[in-house]
Amino acid sequence: MSEFHSKIKTIEWVKTASGGHSLMVDQTKIPYAFEKVEIKTLKSMYNAIKTMIVRGAPAIGIAGAHGCALFALELLSKYAPVEDLWKNDRTIEDKNLDKNQRSLFFNELEEGLNYLNSSRPTAVNLSWAIGEQKKVIENSKKLPLATVCTNLINNAIKLENEDIEINKKIGNYGAEVVPKGAGILTHCNAGALATVGYGTALGVVRSAFAKDPSIQVYADETRPRGQGAKITTFELVQDGIPVTLLTDGMCSYFMRNKMIDIVVVGADRIAANGDTANKIGTSTVAIAAKYYNIPFYVAAPKSTIDLSIKTGNDIIIELRDEEEVTMVNGKRICAEGVKIINPSFDVTDNALITGIITEYGIFKPEELKYKIK
Amino acid sequence: MSEFHSKIKTIEWVKTASGGHSLMVDQTKIPYAFEKVEIKTLKSMYNAIKTMIVRGAPAIGIAGAHGCALFALELLSKYAPVEDLWKNDRTIEDKNLDKNQRSLFFNELEEGLNYLNSSRPTAVNLSWAIGEQKKVIENSKKLPLATVCTNLINNAIKLENEDIEINKKIGNYGAEVVPKGAGILTHCNAGALATVGYGTALGVVRSAFAKDPSIQVYADETRPRGQGAKITTFELVQDGIPVTLLTDGMCSYFMRNKMIDIVVVGADRIAANGDTANKIGTSTVAIAAKYYNIPFYVAAPKSTIDLSIKTGNDIIIELRDEEEVTMVNGKRICAEGVKIINPSFDVTDNALITGIITEYGIFKPEELKYKIK
Repeated sequence: MSEFHSKIKTIEWVKTASGGHSLMVDQTKIPYAFEKVEIKTLKSMYNAIKTMIVRGAPAIGIAGAHGCALFALELLSKYAPVEDLWKNDRTIEDKNLDKNQRSLFFNELEEGLNYLNSSRPTAVNLSWAIGEQKKVIENSKKLPLATVCTNLINNAIKLENEDIEINKKIGNYGAEVVPKGAGILTHCNAGALATVGYGTALGVVRSAFAKDPSIQVYADETRPRGQGAKITTFELVQDGIPVTLLTDGMCSYFMRNKMIDIVVVGADRIAANGDTANKIGTSTVAIAAKYYNIPFYVAAPKSTIDLSIKTGNDIIIELRDEEEVTMVNGKRICAEGVKIINPSFDVTDNALITGIITEYGIFKPEELKYKIK
Repeated sequence: MSEFHSKIKTIEWVKTASGGHSLMVDQTKIPYAFEKVEIKTLKSMYNAIKTMIVRGAPAIGIAGAHGCALFALELLSKYAPVEDLWKNDRTIEDKNLDKNQRSLFFNELEEGLNYLNSSRPTAVNLSWAIGEQKKVIENSKKLPLATVCTNLINNAIKLENEDIEINKKIGNYGAEVVPKGAGILTHCNAGALATVGYGTALGVVRSAFAKDPSIQVYADETRPRGQGAKITTFELVQDGIPVTLLTDGMCSYFMRNKMIDIVVVGADRIAANGDTANKIGTSTVAIAAKYYNIPFYVAAPKSTIDLSIKTGNDIIIELRDEEEVTMVNGKRICAEGVKIINPSFDVTDNALITGIITEYGIFKPEELKYKIK
């Protein structure tokens, strides 16, 4: 059962003759089933992100990078179909395409990328990864279209591999601030399944556990969608890391009773002043941690930091369906006639954050804008 | 649909020739069904309290008073059965009973009351109400056993009626501190269904709504059992009071976005220094309210205040079944192999409480021990 995190890839590009497709764990089925789905078109990638088949800021970023490559392949088969992308003779393609067709390809590609970027608004990693792919496109504007596609695919695979390396660095830096035998509280899932394969907050947990198997994890259920209950407990049980499940209101009880020594969570977007958007409920935990003088850390890669946004007040918070709140396991949990506002994220004030654990080290919130470029 | 609270009685004594029985709303079925169950024995009252067919500190108190009367009736039919309790000729009974039988009656009655008192440990109202019945027994030691029974029944009915009057006083005092058009956050259910019929925290809401129909209620779901989602939304929708359902982690988001002007919750036991045990998650909300400078009130009758307990550290917190956390609507919500600690209550520090709203007025936590005797 151990080292689940090193055996699976949450999301990966599968190369085929025609270019390939995205293969991802269907996270809506965990912990009941562990299944992978193939995503082959822009539309189905949009839906996979929107319906949270893939979720977690870094994983969504990679999904975005894959989606760009997938749509480029769709457009290639429309304008300049190839039999084998990897063995294609680019010179033939160039001869058969006129300038107008090439510009249609690039215009449609850009539209598709913007559409994909609208699938979820809060996690900056999506627009960051799409931005990385836009740079590839910009640098490939004069190359054969098939080469544009292979460049996008290769860049997506590069981002995939980098994500794991970044997470391991985050894990190693973070493990240094975890006390011996600590009770570590986390909220939602910032684990292997929120990334390509190691985790940010749970990367810190994994690195800490490797050094000190006496640590204990406390996982918030994380209503409404229950990613903590469903995904975090699944991941940690697979890796043999002891985990206790809490309902979201319980954090004060566990903190008051001195079971929690440190809180580590992930992030969806970090503003230049260190204010951090993360899964709804995070800031409630951060306030409780401050009250009990428990250190509160955010673990996230540089790609989650958005220096273009000054404070958390400017971060767009996604509002999701009412049914996420009113329905659990197919049954209504409340009276008819109740009103629902379902924000998927909240903003934790920088003053509540002890440190932000990145692949470059641990920074105080106010240091970000000087130390992360 | 309006004035649900004045039409129903959550728990009431039904008089019959043989004495009567307790009739209560089965709260485990709300909001799916509104059904009443008859409770006729000590054992079934113990189970009704333990399995939360009846819940809410004041309602549990009345259930305890009923349970005492029920068990006295059971013992009466064992030692000195009567055809019609209300028309029984007490002089005949006295002749047929020897001293030994009378002392067996009182000894068994006391054992039964102690058993009932063990059904749930945290809400002091249960032991308070059983204590009130013990005083009746003490004062009836020389009376015919049938009179002991009628005295216990009549005292239970008196406590029932007083509960509603007390709640209305709490409501009126509390309404004075609710700002015009306020957003009122509440946790769990301290409503008509937690009492005999008006509510403590929701009594404040009802009295405030009667004066100002522009108020809005925000109800925490209150995992693990979801009394906020199930019972509070049901009550408020019935009375036409606007209610928005929050998951338990959302309070910080709603407070940060200035939707909450005041928090009002109930209580299960208030220590002499004002530290307050209430449903798990309450202190998390109180800490968030303090952070955002939002007033936090506890609404509870004098019978919830336990001056024999100095601070919240000495309040016994009930731990309940794992399945309350791991199962929702008949389906498991987490991986196998996870650990569970399921405290049913937490303690809110007195420093977080703006005021305690009682039937005698609103007091600061530190005033309780001088002003409540």
